[in-house]
Amino acid sequence: MSRLYLKKTPRRLNYVARQMRTFMLTLVLSSFLSFSVVAQDFPEGKVIDLTHSYDEETIYWPTAGDFELANVAAGVTEEGYYYYANRFSAAEHGGTHIDAPRHFFEGANTVDQIPLEQLMGHGVLVDVSEKCSKDPDYQIEIDDLLKWEEEFGTIPVDSIVFLKTGYGKHWPDRVRYMGTDERGSGALQKLHFPGLHPDAARWLVEERKMKAVGLDTPSIDYGQSTLFETHVALFEKNVPALENLAHLDQLPAKGFTVIALPMKIKGGSGGPTRVIAILE
Amino acid sequence: MSRLYLKKTPRRLNYVARQMRTFMLTLVLSSFLSFSVVAQDFPEGKVIDLTHSYDEETIYWPTAGDFELANVAAGVTEEGYYYYANRFSAAEHGGTHIDAPRHFFEGANTVDQIPLEQLMGHGVLVDVSEKCSKDPDYQIEIDDLLKWEEEFGTIPVDSIVFLKTGYGKHWPDRVRYMGTDERGSGALQKLHFPGLHPDAARWLVEERKMKAVGLDTPSIDYGQSTLFETHVALFEKNVPALENLAHLDQLPAKGFTVIALPMKIKGGSGGPTRVIAILE
Repeated sequence: MSRLYLKKTPRRLNYVARQMRTFMLTLVLSSFLSFSVVAQDFPEGKVIDLTHSYDEETIYWPTAGDFELANVAAGVTEEGYYYYANRFSAAEHGGTHIDAPRHFFEGANTVDQIPLEQLMGHGVLVDVSEKCSKDPDYQIEIDDLLKWEEEFGTIPVDSIVFLKTGYGKHWPDRVRYMGTDERGSGALQKLHFPGLHPDAARWLVEERKMKAVGLDTPSIDYGQSTLFETHVALFEKNVPALENLAHLDQLPAKGFTVIALPMKIKGGSGGPTRVIAILE
Repeated sequence: MSRLYLKKTPRRLNYVARQMRTFMLTLVLSSFLSFSVVAQDFPEGKVIDLTHSYDEETIYWPTAGDFELANVAAGVTEEGYYYYANRFSAAEHGGTHIDAPRHFFEGANTVDQIPLEQLMGHGVLVDVSEKCSKDPDYQIEIDDLLKWEEEFGTIPVDSIVFLKTGYGKHWPDRVRYMGTDERGSGALQKLHFPGLHPDAARWLVEERKMKAVGLDTPSIDYGQSTLFETHVALFEKNVPALENLAHLDQLPAKGFTVIALPMKIKGGSGGPTRVIAILE
């Protein structure tokens, strides 16, 4: 509506026009508001499952046993209905799972004690797959995180930070995924896969106040670690770690929500966890 | 601003006042909009854990074994760091868990095949605890659901429907929760707890197109069921059931989002599931 037009219009019409403009503005803004109320179907964005299935191929630490599924019933019963059920057995740490802080720090949260709010939040994905493809003993450094920030901005407080080493694509090939398919304590020194450097862990906890961290390898400390200093650095601050994540290649650098819900084992050091991302 | 005031004000001021009003209106509505964009921290509402912990008291079907947790390590290692880990064993159906449709219907979805979108959505809570407190063999009827709708409106398509029998408060007392603490097949006929009537299950699936159903008893069929017709009615339509839910007394009749993430057991008939609600 031009000034010229306003000048040519009788005062009464001017007033009506203004009232109309106010009304239209209110209408447009209200419809926006209404939209945000109506469009509450959950989830609104695409859901990505970041979880490997538990089966006979599920990868565990060389010193732990495999996932075992024992069939209890499968077939039509005497009463005429179909019935199928199993019993299973597993180590707490294998497959896509969470390390509760208690795993490496006495007195820290067990898996059932982790606040649910700490397992849900906005995610960021730091892609270090190029460096990791060249060095299976690579430890992700503060510089890798700062490089991400240069491109995408400061990692927001309360983020869940995912590290894409690229090793997820080797699942379930133990040799390529973790350096060896041998079992027992003798295999531990043959473990080779990337992890998060203890300094970078401390930086993320102290300088960026992240809720949790996760990656696509069997352990947040790199394969050659003997003192598990990254675990300790995180867990003494009650920050849990998600390990053996799947499908990190389907995530953007930012703009997704993470929900990681662990099996609620009372006093557990960790356990199977269903981890999902919702694209924002 | 009164008409009288407007009349007493010079025209120029009138114009300014109107412009000001438009500006303020825009500001107020915009700030609402900005708020809805900024306040994206997830989760926005209060989170309620609807999951019982797995421990030695966890309730299983009389014919199934208990939850077993075996300690593997707990203490300071030779290398000087603290380390704690366990192995566990469980039936798929016990504690707060999901029945995958395959549990009672051949060819239907196993637990790993249930689409994640079906396990997330807006919840409704139908409170039938008064009737159930008087009759431990009560089967929730279509009329109970219609009564809910009279008060709160039609159950929206794609809802997750929770039934509060009130039996959750008896956990983990087996006698009060399910009628008997005996074990083995001889105990089955002594089971007494409420469930969903097969007709009401069919109605919810066909007439209200719900995503999933859940309740605070050990089984979606009532304790005295011998043919498990509600399980079949749901599962032939690939609608899963959540059983042994906790803390349903903390939920309103509507206005909450449900997220139920099961352990991803390949080919599983069900399994431990972390179920949460976020108040909207």
